[in-house]
Amino acid sequence: MMTVSTAALILDRCDELATHSALPGGLIERVYLSPEHAAVNALAADWMKQSGLTTWQDAAGNQCGRLEGATPGLPALLLGSHLDTVPCAGRYDGILGVLLAIAVADRVRVSGRVLPFALEVVAFGDEEGTRFGTTLLGSRALAGTWQPEWWRLRDAHGVTLHEAFLAFGLDPARVAEAARSPQDLVGYLEAHIEQGPVLDDSDQPLAVVTSIAGARRFQITIDGAAGHSGTPWSLRRDALAGASEAILAIEDIARRANLIATVGHLRVFPDAVNVIPGRAEFSLDLRGQFDAERDSAWEGIEAALSDICSRRLLTVHSVQTHSAPAAHCSTRLREAVADGIRSSSVAGSVSTDAPSLLSMAGHDAMAVAAVTEIGMLFVRCAGGVSHHPDESVTEADVDAALEAVEAAVLAVVDAQPFEGSAA
Amino acid sequence: MMTVSTAALILDRCDELATHSALPGGLIERVYLSPEHAAVNALAADWMKQSGLTTWQDAAGNQCGRLEGATPGLPALLLGSHLDTVPCAGRYDGILGVLLAIAVADRVRVSGRVLPFALEVVAFGDEEGTRFGTTLLGSRALAGTWQPEWWRLRDAHGVTLHEAFLAFGLDPARVAEAARSPQDLVGYLEAHIEQGPVLDDSDQPLAVVTSIAGARRFQITIDGAAGHSGTPWSLRRDALAGASEAILAIEDIARRANLIATVGHLRVFPDAVNVIPGRAEFSLDLRGQFDAERDSAWEGIEAALSDICSRRLLTVHSVQTHSAPAAHCSTRLREAVADGIRSSSVAGSVSTDAPSLLSMAGHDAMAVAAVTEIGMLFVRCAGGVSHHPDESVTEADVDAALEAVEAAVLAVVDAQPFEGSAA
Repeated sequence: MMTVSTAALILDRCDELATHSALPGGLIERVYLSPEHAAVNALAADWMKQSGLTTWQDAAGNQCGRLEGATPGLPALLLGSHLDTVPCAGRYDGILGVLLAIAVADRVRVSGRVLPFALEVVAFGDEEGTRFGTTLLGSRALAGTWQPEWWRLRDAHGVTLHEAFLAFGLDPARVAEAARSPQDLVGYLEAHIEQGPVLDDSDQPLAVVTSIAGARRFQITIDGAAGHSGTPWSLRRDALAGASEAILAIEDIARRANLIATVGHLRVFPDAVNVIPGRAEFSLDLRGQFDAERDSAWEGIEAALSDICSRRLLTVHSVQTHSAPAAHCSTRLREAVADGIRSSSVAGSVSTDAPSLLSMAGHDAMAVAAVTEIGMLFVRCAGGVSHHPDESVTEADVDAALEAVEAAVLAVVDAQPFEGSAA
Repeated sequence: MMTVSTAALILDRCDELATHSALPGGLIERVYLSPEHAAVNALAADWMKQSGLTTWQDAAGNQCGRLEGATPGLPALLLGSHLDTVPCAGRYDGILGVLLAIAVADRVRVSGRVLPFALEVVAFGDEEGTRFGTTLLGSRALAGTWQPEWWRLRDAHGVTLHEAFLAFGLDPARVAEAARSPQDLVGYLEAHIEQGPVLDDSDQPLAVVTSIAGARRFQITIDGAAGHSGTPWSLRRDALAGASEAILAIEDIARRANLIATVGHLRVFPDAVNVIPGRAEFSLDLRGQFDAERDSAWEGIEAALSDICSRRLLTVHSVQTHSAPAAHCSTRLREAVADGIRSSSVAGSVSTDAPSLLSMAGHDAMAVAAVTEIGMLFVRCAGGVSHHPDESVTEADVDAALEAVEAAVLAVVDAQPFEGSAA
């Protein structure tokens, strides 16, 4: 009989989760409160139960599992990430962290080791914000930072978040029950693919995350005048031409400021071959290590938008749809993750200290930081590619990550002055 | 009892046609082979019958009516335009020409004047190409230039042109029956709003069209790599940033070459706030008075696309979806239209000769030019605005157009060396 490694099992589970998709042809899209969300929650709950965890789906649709510590009811160290995806996603972003968390809980239970805190696994239902445009809905419910105005958010089919809750079998009136108290938590550890090229370029499997860049998002609308495609230049007020100039200005301003800017969504109206676009709507996602630099770049972008539009006789209107300050990992959990990586490296082939990285990508940890301290570990992905079917990780790196997260949990024990601690 | 002028009746009919729309809230969209198309054909057929015309819907869904000349079966002078619209359209583009044609046929019949040719009114079902991306389907069926490969064209819902024919109650196998023979035709006269500012700027109600600019259309696809919005600049292959640069280059090249270029359609994929666009698809409509200049500008655009994409590590692929050479109005019909305008001006207040204009917009006449000679008359519209709810014409201008088209028809009689001619 072949013995399958835990890392191989995790990769198999990633493949199995990938089959739950709203898109045909092997492409992955799994959004908050969808039938696919329900299906992967059920799968994750099964796997949690197989690992001896008590499971429940919380009031916001996050799938949870708990392994008690030395005595029932101790504060919990949360391990988790998310199971939702962007359209045409890869199979590891978020997902790998959830499956590592389940596997680490399994190892702790199987080892018979008694921890001075409970271990909980959380599989968040919304991190990407694909469906309702607002990200981190799952982790913000857990952090108790849910905003009542979100109930009116609509998806592309006009369904409100409130309606989607009901359709999923959740009670909107009870969403606050998903919120956790700081005194019930020890901290939050998340493993995630790096989504950058540093680990792949430097031939390292794992990194310690120091902090997560703050992001602001805007919906920008440029209005001109629709008109026949034969209209002479002097009479044109082409919203798409204005948006094109705006997109290049954003790129230029963000590069100079050492920030990252993405215009990922764009629509033109009426969107016909022979009609000058009268309106262009686009998103801007602006992120950087320092909030002040980012805010100052946004002021520069606003000025550029205004210049471009007044020159082209267009009007511009911007709405901020998201704002998150940079989130910093706690010293204690950063050190626990570094210890974890170091002990996995002793077992493996990596001899140097793991790099410390800033995360340009947002993560559930950002939201959870509102209620408890956070720590993160990055796993190398091929070429740094994510949000794409080509996302790829190796079994050896997953194995290293598994060792490291388990060792990090034990390092938290040693750092932990809790009553009932064995230390 | 109030007497309603014919021009007022025509404007009322424009308003009535505007109620047949696929869009809510008073916005107009009426595409080929839709329920709205069937509804306006039925209305137009009623009005034709009230004017004494024999009516039929041809094998391509164009609504036709015929008034015999001195003897039954004479070749016909066609008067027409189209009843389909772009999304969020105005109520006069195409439509005004059809209603003027019906009103002129009515006047000829009521006058008891016997013409040496039949008069036919044609209300084309597709000029704009909104539904299937390929324009002039109605007039190209009449001209006998229908292409079998069009059957596979699909609308935004995946419905093929072949399926749409069947759903409309038409037999695709019989589309060739819509084609007219040159020997059965005397010519084609079309009245249309100007879609430019020249008449409004020069305070003239009507113009003679000299020729129609040739247009080429392309579908351009830029491919990069989708990726997480946190990806650093060095790893980005952002298809929308490339498309933005391309759109500005197109604008620059076309302006310098004295051509008109429109990017009216653009989509990005996967179109999510936090994903770098891996693909951008957009249309290009390029038109000008001289085919050679236009073709040379396209070569310049192709070179610019290639430069932009190689610099940004993107790939580009272009497909021509439409190509029409410039179409020239015949001397005989140009003179008939000029005569018509002159005699309407004598009746009215305009004393100078009507301007002669190049049409930058395409028209059914371009397609009909393949089977018979063409002539066109432009009617002033406010600010030159078209393809927009603000399209507007005055009752006085419609009245002048009515006089002019009727007089132009009589001028064709005088210019016409046909057997049975009264001259």
